[in-house]
Amino acid sequence: MTSLRIAALSIGDELLDGRIKDGNTHDLGNALSALGLELGEARVIPDVRQTIVDTVRALVQNYDIIVTSGGLGPTSDDVTAECLAEAAGCGLRFDEPSFVRMQAMFEGRGIEMPANNRRQAMLPASSRTLVNQMGTAPGFVTPFVVGDRSVEVWSFPGVPREYQHLRDDELLPVLLQRLGSSGAALTLVRRTLRCLGLAESAIGERLTPLEKAHPDVRVQYRAAFPEIIVRLVLTVDAGASAAVNARADTLADEARAAIGSSVWGMGDEPLEERVLTAARARGLTLATAESCTGGLVAKRLTDVAGSSDVVLGGVVSYANSAKVALLDVPEALLEAHGAVSGPVAEAMAAGARARLGASLAVSVSGVAGPGGGSADKPVGTVVFGLATPDGVTSVKKKFPDFGRERVREMAAATALRLLLSALTGPDSTGGES
Amino acid sequence: MTSLRIAALSIGDELLDGRIKDGNTHDLGNALSALGLELGEARVIPDVRQTIVDTVRALVQNYDIIVTSGGLGPTSDDVTAECLAEAAGCGLRFDEPSFVRMQAMFEGRGIEMPANNRRQAMLPASSRTLVNQMGTAPGFVTPFVVGDRSVEVWSFPGVPREYQHLRDDELLPVLLQRLGSSGAALTLVRRTLRCLGLAESAIGERLTPLEKAHPDVRVQYRAAFPEIIVRLVLTVDAGASAAVNARADTLADEARAAIGSSVWGMGDEPLEERVLTAARARGLTLATAESCTGGLVAKRLTDVAGSSDVVLGGVVSYANSAKVALLDVPEALLEAHGAVSGPVAEAMAAGARARLGASLAVSVSGVAGPGGGSADKPVGTVVFGLATPDGVTSVKKKFPDFGRERVREMAAATALRLLLSALTGPDSTGGES
Repeated sequence: MTSLRIAALSIGDELLDGRIKDGNTHDLGNALSALGLELGEARVIPDVRQTIVDTVRALVQNYDIIVTSGGLGPTSDDVTAECLAEAAGCGLRFDEPSFVRMQAMFEGRGIEMPANNRRQAMLPASSRTLVNQMGTAPGFVTPFVVGDRSVEVWSFPGVPREYQHLRDDELLPVLLQRLGSSGAALTLVRRTLRCLGLAESAIGERLTPLEKAHPDVRVQYRAAFPEIIVRLVLTVDAGASAAVNARADTLADEARAAIGSSVWGMGDEPLEERVLTAARARGLTLATAESCTGGLVAKRLTDVAGSSDVVLGGVVSYANSAKVALLDVPEALLEAHGAVSGPVAEAMAAGARARLGASLAVSVSGVAGPGGGSADKPVGTVVFGLATPDGVTSVKKKFPDFGRERVREMAAATALRLLLSALTGPDSTGGES
Repeated sequence: MTSLRIAALSIGDELLDGRIKDGNTHDLGNALSALGLELGEARVIPDVRQTIVDTVRALVQNYDIIVTSGGLGPTSDDVTAECLAEAAGCGLRFDEPSFVRMQAMFEGRGIEMPANNRRQAMLPASSRTLVNQMGTAPGFVTPFVVGDRSVEVWSFPGVPREYQHLRDDELLPVLLQRLGSSGAALTLVRRTLRCLGLAESAIGERLTPLEKAHPDVRVQYRAAFPEIIVRLVLTVDAGASAAVNARADTLADEARAAIGSSVWGMGDEPLEERVLTAARARGLTLATAESCTGGLVAKRLTDVAGSSDVVLGGVVSYANSAKVALLDVPEALLEAHGAVSGPVAEAMAAGARARLGASLAVSVSGVAGPGGGSADKPVGTVVFGLATPDGVTSVKKKFPDFGRERVREMAAATALRLLLSALTGPDSTGGES
């Protein structure tokens, strides 16, 4: 493989002093890995001009592509463009089209553009502009020649969604094209399994026989808490793709069988979108009743654009008085069983379904911690209720106590999984789309 | 400035190909920052011997302390100790006490120790052992002499809890001692301003005069959407700290005056915690009524442990029918004004306050997009209602349409800010804690 040598360079004081965790490098590594490429090195450096210039000069000696993140903002500590120009030995140019785009963006918001933003249109003279659809700062590609090698430094804003946009829409297509034109056109066939409720090591153990039987298949594991995402990657030369697709399907079926019911779906569609799609296809509406998740289930469902035709609403019944007032949970039930109990979870779901007039309602009541646990109901104990036209059921889970946030995330995902199972049956995990 | 120059070096293929997100560097930066120290640079490199040796040799040229993470495991790709020995020009030694500890750990678990683990007791001959209470792999400190400088490379396992243990119990005490004994210990004095509702560039513009008047003060800007966080950093030798603190306070006041009412607070406490603290101090309870934010306001409030004494609950009234059924919004009001209107937002807040029996309730109704906008109420239009014992008010905002997620985040933060203003008054931004 005529592989490309690629390095990542993240720029910003805030990445070194603990204020921000750099996620762009990790995500770039992931994206490159999916293409069969590897990140050779990653560096994080402060907003110090000489350090930036020196580091760029050092990296171009050893890599073909360097991807920088950050330092493209409008303030005085944003110096990436100036430093790239200095490292490349060129001046700065004023990029009129970027400036016009910025002005239009501010006008669209009815705000006058601060004079500072003009800085963001000053790019290295030799660079090619990358139009940023997500924000004011354009990206740019600065060419270097090192001996007889052509090196490119791709500079993206550090804001994750702007970085991802330019990575996916500008950089990756160029990389794919270069891989393709190298004569040994590379195709990747992937199958993605999404798992909830098993540890990564346990999933890995269940897939060990498959990995051993098919050493040419890359099995990638990724923890996207609370999910574990497993990807089977088959590399093929262009042309043989039909047979490889069939083999990938067979392998995915084997992997699903090996992992078991923890696989809730396949492909890239998030759990909340699967739930909405399944409900919409059946003409059903949804409601939520949340205690310990405090609105997280409703938030995830309404994260999705167009969710309003399916999601009628929900209740965050944090206090017991709210469970009584808004969900008609009988006080006697709360006294007899406590809020974290099957009967109360069932009453919450039934109350939300009735009050909101929804086809299905899910409820969550649990101990997210750090306080509130007991020997009987330790932190991580969560009870779920499900109300459907067929009746009301409940299920109790004990999640590991990895902290309040994780218990809540695990509980919200489990509530969505219960809705999905109610809508599609427990074994219908859907196909790769 | 007799500061220590410190760099982080993370070692492992899995950190570059997207399998694992390196959190150790971020946490080290945070811990050093708390001591007034700064991480000068961070690198991530693969498990490749020559790369590790070369990188260690390069870093010791520029730094006094290098902290490595990873590569101390028992498998063949764990080569950090060998590489440190090669870089330092010494051999390996067998560390008997570490080996005995490992054996005892395995015995304690009733497992026979795999032969592979013996590798973990092979350390650079010149190194000092760091006893790891949390796992089998010992850490170690390898000394280098560069010119007339003494440099130390501290090697920790990559497993976060083992890394943190050796960092906090071994490295940080040594750093503190050196800072104290250097005679001119360095102190950083910081003031943090938290802003909501102004673009980073606009804030930068307003602080330009302050930056020019005080060139020795570092002004750091960070976009933590939807907030912009501004930090003033003053560097001083120990001793003068009272005067410097007074100067920092004066500068922070000047910065707040320059930025204006967009500053909602100071310090590191998140907005939702400030709201809860303010409500708790006044013995007040809170409720929410959310349409376009779909539970995000309630979710943020209940993210905080112990929020249950203040947050009674909330309603996610996504459909109009939910606004009527759960919040007593009159249907006639919805028909006359539409859901995104002052009268409806006020009725939602009043309904949530009454139904939940809360002291204060905030409501959110808006157009998060991408659909649903009109010429009259474009995407980004959000109306907020506030119900207090003194009555009900509403305010309409137009946020820039940076996508559904951002409109929702901006709306949720604004709702929290409205609660905070109702609790503390619009100009009470609190002090640095």
